[in-house]
Amino acid sequence: MKYYMPVRVYDEPECVLNHKEEIVSYGHKALIVTGRRSAQKCGALGDVVSALKQCGREYAVYNKIEENPSMETIMDASSFGRSEQVDFVIGIGGGSPLDAAKAIAFMIRRNSDNPDDLYDASLAADALDVIAVPTTCGTGSEVTGVSVLTVHAKNTKISIPHKIFPKLALIDGKYLSSAPHSMIVNTSIDAFAHMSESYLSKKADVYSQSAALTGLKLWSEVKDVLTQEREADGQDYAKLMRASTFGGIAIAQTGTSIPHALSYILTYDQKIPHGKAVGYFLGRFIGFADEADQKAILDAAGFESADELNTFLSRVFGEYEVKRETLQRAYDTVSANAVRMQGSRVEMDPEKLRVIVNLH
Amino acid sequence: MKYYMPVRVYDEPECVLNHKEEIVSYGHKALIVTGRRSAQKCGALGDVVSALKQCGREYAVYNKIEENPSMETIMDASSFGRSEQVDFVIGIGGGSPLDAAKAIAFMIRRNSDNPDDLYDASLAADALDVIAVPTTCGTGSEVTGVSVLTVHAKNTKISIPHKIFPKLALIDGKYLSSAPHSMIVNTSIDAFAHMSESYLSKKADVYSQSAALTGLKLWSEVKDVLTQEREADGQDYAKLMRASTFGGIAIAQTGTSIPHALSYILTYDQKIPHGKAVGYFLGRFIGFADEADQKAILDAAGFESADELNTFLSRVFGEYEVKRETLQRAYDTVSANAVRMQGSRVEMDPEKLRVIVNLH
Repeated sequence: MKYYMPVRVYDEPECVLNHKEEIVSYGHKALIVTGRRSAQKCGALGDVVSALKQCGREYAVYNKIEENPSMETIMDASSFGRSEQVDFVIGIGGGSPLDAAKAIAFMIRRNSDNPDDLYDASLAADALDVIAVPTTCGTGSEVTGVSVLTVHAKNTKISIPHKIFPKLALIDGKYLSSAPHSMIVNTSIDAFAHMSESYLSKKADVYSQSAALTGLKLWSEVKDVLTQEREADGQDYAKLMRASTFGGIAIAQTGTSIPHALSYILTYDQKIPHGKAVGYFLGRFIGFADEADQKAILDAAGFESADELNTFLSRVFGEYEVKRETLQRAYDTVSANAVRMQGSRVEMDPEKLRVIVNLH
Repeated sequence: MKYYMPVRVYDEPECVLNHKEEIVSYGHKALIVTGRRSAQKCGALGDVVSALKQCGREYAVYNKIEENPSMETIMDASSFGRSEQVDFVIGIGGGSPLDAAKAIAFMIRRNSDNPDDLYDASLAADALDVIAVPTTCGTGSEVTGVSVLTVHAKNTKISIPHKIFPKLALIDGKYLSSAPHSMIVNTSIDAFAHMSESYLSKKADVYSQSAALTGLKLWSEVKDVLTQEREADGQDYAKLMRASTFGGIAIAQTGTSIPHALSYILTYDQKIPHGKAVGYFLGRFIGFADEADQKAILDAAGFESADELNTFLSRVFGEYEVKRETLQRAYDTVSANAVRMQGSRVEMDPEKLRVIVNLH
């Protein structure tokens, strides 16, 4: 058994401004890494900029992180960061900007123009200090060392081998309050997937499962917000984010599993949002888990049965088509990956995988 | 809410030898800090020495840490460590050597002969890297930044203000297998106290309570070993240590509470072992918690009622006397400490404290 999650977490209203002195203890000039709009719209960018200004610190903003950021974007951003002579990185957003912030911090520290460094496992994982401000409720990236990038040369998304944990995670549910419902649904299902896939991992132990089950219980208290049975309030937003953070703590120990591996192809080929792509496979995957494991996950998440979970997933996502050729490519990719096929306590074989992929 | 526990934990059989390369990544010459005998007897010292030798590293052993180590011992050990030019510290043992290792690592890094530095909160908490190998099942020190020392000038034990988390915690239940039953009982009750006091802290939140409840559940599975209803096996030893580690994760977030504060006087005045001293107050303290909190703790720990907990505590410790003057000094010390009196969700007043202290 093992446990490692060295990020200092503040999970409270106004944590960015409350901890501004600690933020600026990490450097003199920050590279703020965001997507085009949402970090600004939700108020997180404004809070970070205020915190830096109040402490007399400089910053440069790189706001061109796309969904599922590519290696090319990382190289562009790190080149910009070097030219601005930044000495720490603040990622604001969902998984895309947070994962990108880690990879950018790595490339700036390397002071290298070689994109191959991103996937060169022989290199030390040295990076500028990273601070993470999540604005969605799925990634968990604020408490993991994981950075998943789009690798066009391989037509998919792949984690870089370097584990780069943020120094600080600043988690404020208010950043969800302006989010579209579809984003909250997509990212919350991603969080649910993290907790479930981690729980079912062969690497799972009482350390990771404690985090997974705690997160699932928090998630169960707000899942009626996802089905729009009621409107979310501030407490709900805080819980949605907190569940996502516990999901991150869990996958930081175990990694993810088959639904995630399959999802990357759906996202690459059809631009299906990450959480929705994961959700496509999740219910059928959990359905193959052994009875005790299923019960633990379903109980914690507040579902009576696997059927109820599947009904829930259909309800939040509605009906949608995935092209057969995309499913086939997902199947082919994952079935050829022995680590993925054998990484879970859900015993897997090609026939079960076909059912999970919905190729039967 | 907040969470911080940056220690890399390996909790597995033979973890010291399994992770020898990682151990020696922290330095070239280790100061091994232990008590006089138990680290050797239980095999942990032998494992650490083997790991260092197999990797060609030097070490010096300081084995004069007494129970409840004094500032004087810390100064003696740090002077020895400096003369040996060590560059990292490995603590092996119960809370005394592990807490001492942190303070020694701090004083060696400061390169100072001034014992007042230990309690000077204005100093940075810089320290040599510390590795912790617990050999008891109570302290949790392997996953906290806490170092409690005996301060003779104040006739009690006090935490130093510097938070010094180990880099690595190497947790192997086998080190318990040669321990006297009384030591396992005393330290396991300390672990139970950590989880309960942390759960009831005003600083408690879902992060700390998740750790506390996970630890209590593990503890509940082995508490019949404490009453000698059955013999312990290797799995039990592992669980006893793991419960203690979860207790440490919990108090790393919240600190301890009134039973711990009171216990320090009993230990100082009458040399009552720490866990037994805490246990003297614990049942009555929990008895004042509100119903929901009591239920959460008792349910997780597998007790039907507070009475059953008290019966359990009497059974494992037997009857013993604490002098009235010692109890009075414990009462006087804690009742005068507003932070202690108000730090718990168990509402406290002088009359309740008298009941907890057993001075009525």
